[in-house]
Amino acid sequence: MTPLQEKRLLFVPKLPNILRDLDQVGFAPAERSEPFGDQEEIQKQFRSTCGLPVMRAHLLAKRSKAHPLNIGVVFSGGQAPGGHNVITGLFDAMKKANQSSALFGFLNGPSGIIAGKCKQLSEDELKNYRNQGGFDLIGSDRTKIETDEQLSKAFETLKRMKLDALVIVGGDDSNTNGAVLAEYLIKRGSSTCIIGVPKTIDGDLQGRYLPISFGFDTACKAYSEMIGNIARDALSARKYIHFVKLMGRSASHITLECALKTQPNYTLIGEEVEAKGQRLEEIVEDLCLMIEERSKRGKNYGVVLVPEGLIEFIPEMKRLMNELSGHKESSDALQREVPKGVPKEVPKEVPKEVQEQLLLDRDPHGNIQLSQIETEKLLSSALKKRLEKRGFKGKLNIVHHFFGYEGRSAFPSNFDATYCYNLGQIAFLIAREGLTGYMGSIPNLTSPLEEWQVYAVPITSLMHVETRKGKRKPVVRKSLVDLDSVAFKTFESKRASWKTEDHYKFPGPMQFEGDPSYTDEVPQLVKLNAPPRED
Amino acid sequence: MTPLQEKRLLFVPKLPNILRDLDQVGFAPAERSEPFGDQEEIQKQFRSTCGLPVMRAHLLAKRSKAHPLNIGVVFSGGQAPGGHNVITGLFDAMKKANQSSALFGFLNGPSGIIAGKCKQLSEDELKNYRNQGGFDLIGSDRTKIETDEQLSKAFETLKRMKLDALVIVGGDDSNTNGAVLAEYLIKRGSSTCIIGVPKTIDGDLQGRYLPISFGFDTACKAYSEMIGNIARDALSARKYIHFVKLMGRSASHITLECALKTQPNYTLIGEEVEAKGQRLEEIVEDLCLMIEERSKRGKNYGVVLVPEGLIEFIPEMKRLMNELSGHKESSDALQREVPKGVPKEVPKEVPKEVQEQLLLDRDPHGNIQLSQIETEKLLSSALKKRLEKRGFKGKLNIVHHFFGYEGRSAFPSNFDATYCYNLGQIAFLIAREGLTGYMGSIPNLTSPLEEWQVYAVPITSLMHVETRKGKRKPVVRKSLVDLDSVAFKTFESKRASWKTEDHYKFPGPMQFEGDPSYTDEVPQLVKLNAPPRED
Repeated sequence: MTPLQEKRLLFVPKLPNILRDLDQVGFAPAERSEPFGDQEEIQKQFRSTCGLPVMRAHLLAKRSKAHPLNIGVVFSGGQAPGGHNVITGLFDAMKKANQSSALFGFLNGPSGIIAGKCKQLSEDELKNYRNQGGFDLIGSDRTKIETDEQLSKAFETLKRMKLDALVIVGGDDSNTNGAVLAEYLIKRGSSTCIIGVPKTIDGDLQGRYLPISFGFDTACKAYSEMIGNIARDALSARKYIHFVKLMGRSASHITLECALKTQPNYTLIGEEVEAKGQRLEEIVEDLCLMIEERSKRGKNYGVVLVPEGLIEFIPEMKRLMNELSGHKESSDALQREVPKGVPKEVPKEVPKEVQEQLLLDRDPHGNIQLSQIETEKLLSSALKKRLEKRGFKGKLNIVHHFFGYEGRSAFPSNFDATYCYNLGQIAFLIAREGLTGYMGSIPNLTSPLEEWQVYAVPITSLMHVETRKGKRKPVVRKSLVDLDSVAFKTFESKRASWKTEDHYKFPGPMQFEGDPSYTDEVPQLVKLNAPPRED
Repeated sequence: MTPLQEKRLLFVPKLPNILRDLDQVGFAPAERSEPFGDQEEIQKQFRSTCGLPVMRAHLLAKRSKAHPLNIGVVFSGGQAPGGHNVITGLFDAMKKANQSSALFGFLNGPSGIIAGKCKQLSEDELKNYRNQGGFDLIGSDRTKIETDEQLSKAFETLKRMKLDALVIVGGDDSNTNGAVLAEYLIKRGSSTCIIGVPKTIDGDLQGRYLPISFGFDTACKAYSEMIGNIARDALSARKYIHFVKLMGRSASHITLECALKTQPNYTLIGEEVEAKGQRLEEIVEDLCLMIEERSKRGKNYGVVLVPEGLIEFIPEMKRLMNELSGHKESSDALQREVPKGVPKEVPKEVPKEVQEQLLLDRDPHGNIQLSQIETEKLLSSALKKRLEKRGFKGKLNIVHHFFGYEGRSAFPSNFDATYCYNLGQIAFLIAREGLTGYMGSIPNLTSPLEEWQVYAVPITSLMHVETRKGKRKPVVRKSLVDLDSVAFKTFESKRASWKTEDHYKFPGPMQFEGDPSYTDEVPQLVKLNAPPRED
């Protein structure tokens, strides 16, 4: 173990007042819930779990009984910093309530549920994973439990293990599948509760009671450290233009957050490109103007942020990708209609390299692998050509970067470590309450930690209906960047000055010392978009 | 300013006992010096500065007089964390000795000397740069002062400014040019001293009294944070093989240091490849064996470190690059003879993409731009082909990374911040002593900070003769990884177990708190290679 690992083992996540004594906490309905849209369609498939009330935790007059519980936990999908703390928070809550409770970790993701592969987790097993990054305690994968056979196998496993609850730590798709499983189990007469924990660095799992998924904060801090370093390098060397592509699939939340944290010269936000119907040509033209203006000022350097998912939001690229995938892409952005008048040819800006990536690189399901497409090179290559055409005589040295995996398994920030530990504790409370098809949430993350509230939100309330592989399907909605949000508006109001003047910020490496002030540490997006505090 | 920037402003680098009261420090000859080799040739060109004694600082019986000094300082070449602290250390020493002393920063590198562009540095100017990354206070470039015209212009500038000394913060080439300028100034009857400060993240500026150049420590810590995160991600996702290319031009010091810090599955060291005459085919074969063995153990993941300069050390590639550059490459590795029997064709392992990079990407001097050649893709593409040929049926998802610029302008570690501040103070002492053609150094960095010794080393003593552009030229020798060193031997003894078992280490982000124990914080290479302590 490295010194920082050892140091982080000693960190004790704080709990809000409501979670100080779990024996005295219960849930009560706070509000009826309905999906984001398409309620009738969703109701049809989720007869038992659609329309369940949003539940809020409150203090009980008398102490609740502490039956022993058997709970299973599984990581589903890509890593997000803090995952291990969901497990330790859950474990600690279970053991505090009743030492006979048992926690089982399914191995290597949802495939472990189907195969019935798991291990019981003890303090001895967990002690070296407290406040550490990664999902390596039990692993993860992207198996979706959705076919009848898979559902049935999962049912068998849960039954055989006599699980009171299964906690699924996952993103939008994993929670969709969690809701499906919850509904299925009810139909089969199982009493195992399915509980979701909102995980994804992309930050696209948001809702009224859910300001952000866990992992987003840490990943953005890790990326911003690197972007800040690169900006300082650009400012010192004065000769490189850095194109930095950032992970985050469809939504541009990560890119927006990193832009607010580091103030680069230019930031592309996929959602804005789509809303304005900006063609590749227009984007490149705008970049040209910036490069030319900076060059006039003697600034042959710069930093440009590019969201991984950008390509899906550019009309011509969307059309192209739709055609290439036979309109079977599952992405939300790709489903939306291509505006009229978009030419049918492969845009001339797309370099051969990227054309090949579009044609060749498919995942096992035949989908285009977004993170493998070098959108940053597409842009910079188009930029070069266009500048040449415009007779640009300045210097142009472009350097490319892609930050993704570096952030997924980073040491969780104090915020994520604490948030996750609390989400684990909440998962226990939901399990004890016997609620199924619910996700734990803390709606007021910007309040002082003592005042954090605890909610259980029906997963169906986060759903709408999408067309996937030609079929209408209720799914948890990917939350995209809202162009009317305070966070985006803040960015929008500042970016003109970032373009030609230099207002780079250098956040540096995450520091873990002292008693963190969580309200200072929450992501900018959460802080800026928080509703006015009710007092 | 970000919170970490503000926090770092408060850091006060400590001084060893010898530097506690600069008025009581003087230098005395410690030993005669001679170049690494080719003494006669070097003597011819450096009549006045070759063979000067190595000087060691000692306490004076009486206090030295504090004449006001005019000193110029310049950054030369790529950024290295800690550069700003060389300036603050120098400034503080000058002002403490005599408030009338004046420090001038030449703007945008050595070209600022030729053009006579500089600004006087005041506390007000410096106060926000203490312990911060980057070179942006005064900028840098790669201009070499070497032609008669350039030397003459530099002479004029220094004369006009009445500089007592010019401090050149640079790497091997910059110090070579510093030595040339020192010799030239003596010939022209100038009394301006030229003083070198050993800078380069590559760590290839080493000598008997110089365990490491500044910046190496921070850059390796920044890269190791990312490599550790990626390793944790690999271990969690269990499906990606990460090829990580690391900056560091010819020498593989950075890669070796990062390997010792993170314990990846496979690490290529350029110097070893050369010493063993390993062909590309053999390297790829060895990688294949590891992938196959790991696959058998159910491990379809891994982390491979590739030094940027590797390509220069592979015999066939060296031959190819020599031919492409008409044997005019300045690199040390490329000069060494290609072993007999190396085939003349372009190795079949080199993918089209990389062939194009070799043919097209040249710097303004016509040199191949090493950092632009995707050696990591060359290897992974050759690996893929070879595994297919061998009938490998396992999974193979390769992800590429390149870490370079992220580390060059990082927040300097406590070690680098302190080391650099001291190097700045030492530069002042050398200037006051009127020594020219010297570089400041601290030979015993692994001793407790209080006991650090202070030396001034003739730059010529770091030289040997190389053939550059067909001509014999005395230059500061690039220090390569010594395969007999303790650091390499340590790596060598451990790597077999790292290959198939997983012993990843996760260093995480640099922490700046508390009172750092420097002896724990020095680079592994310095620690392991330190000579036994004399008591």
